[in-house]
Amino acid sequence: MDVAGAAGATSDITAETGDGTVIAFFKYNWQVRDEWFAWCEQVSFDELIRARVGGVGSILYTLFHVVDAEGSWIGALAGKPDPKPRFEDYMTVAKLRRLSNEFRTELTPFIEQWTPQWEDKTIEVHWNPGDVFTYGEVVRHVIAHEIHHVGQLSVWARELGLQPVSANFIGRTL
Amino acid sequence: MDVAGAAGATSDITAETGDGTVIAFFKYNWQVRDEWFAWCEQVSFDELIRARVGGVGSILYTLFHVVDAEGSWIGALAGKPDPKPRFEDYMTVAKLRRLSNEFRTELTPFIEQWTPQWEDKTIEVHWNPGDVFTYGEVVRHVIAHEIHHVGQLSVWARELGLQPVSANFIGRTL
Repeated sequence: MDVAGAAGATSDITAETGDGTVIAFFKYNWQVRDEWFAWCEQVSFDELIRARVGGVGSILYTLFHVVDAEGSWIGALAGKPDPKPRFEDYMTVAKLRRLSNEFRTELTPFIEQWTPQWEDKTIEVHWNPGDVFTYGEVVRHVIAHEIHHVGQLSVWARELGLQPVSANFIGRTL
Repeated sequence: MDVAGAAGATSDITAETGDGTVIAFFKYNWQVRDEWFAWCEQVSFDELIRARVGGVGSILYTLFHVVDAEGSWIGALAGKPDPKPRFEDYMTVAKLRRLSNEFRTELTPFIEQWTPQWEDKTIEVHWNPGDVFTYGEVVRHVIAHEIHHVGQLSVWARELGLQPVSANFIGRTL
């Protein structure tokens, strides 16, 4: 496998605190997301918002969607109100990167404190009425959700004739 | 988010043993992989091996690739020789599903016993000469690797006019 590492965002979170796997995956998603923001700088706005087959439909909306979903789900676990950003207010890479950083600053303390003791705590959220989720499954849902959507971005990048951001976890010293 | 759950493969592994997050993600990947094998039954062989843009190039080869990568990496952590299956020997869904199940049976004991105490153990592998990896980053690499490639499958499924397997972690009672 290609281990071409990627620098990018760093964090004070270490895999030695809390649940190392959960923390490391959030660090991974945040680093990869920042690399996709940088990748977007070479792509025209028209291509970033062009409707594409699969996923949630466009490159920029996919990045908004993963930021929005993380903010809603992890915010809910952290006891914060659903921020409900509107895509039309964040339709540039710069604005979306700022939103991503704001949410990250807001959610990092919760992620840093994540402990397996929270695994079985339960939560209900307004966007899934009638369902009860455990904190553990929500944290893993958010992690897998972004990795899955980034896989879709990688196909669309190749359709544009561009090299996608590396999805490798190894080589990032996370 | 769509919480349309999906049944599928079950396992005796519980999130209460070892590192619950690592174990739960392997259960997730194995359940989603089995659902993709079932999904493939509705698609012609020509479409399964058709060269596509992005990823490793075809639906069937992508599924082979995630099975092969998991077998090599987790097998290495478990001290097993690299199985090195050849794609040409597993070019049907039935053969690939059998290979996936064989590797899973072989690797499940290691995954069941995974403990954060193995996080910082290091390993070198012949397919990345000169690199030294920690067990923790390898386990997370394998988890993210499959989720990423499955995201690519989901785009190709839509290109075929078919609904992809749900990538939701929630709703699977893992």
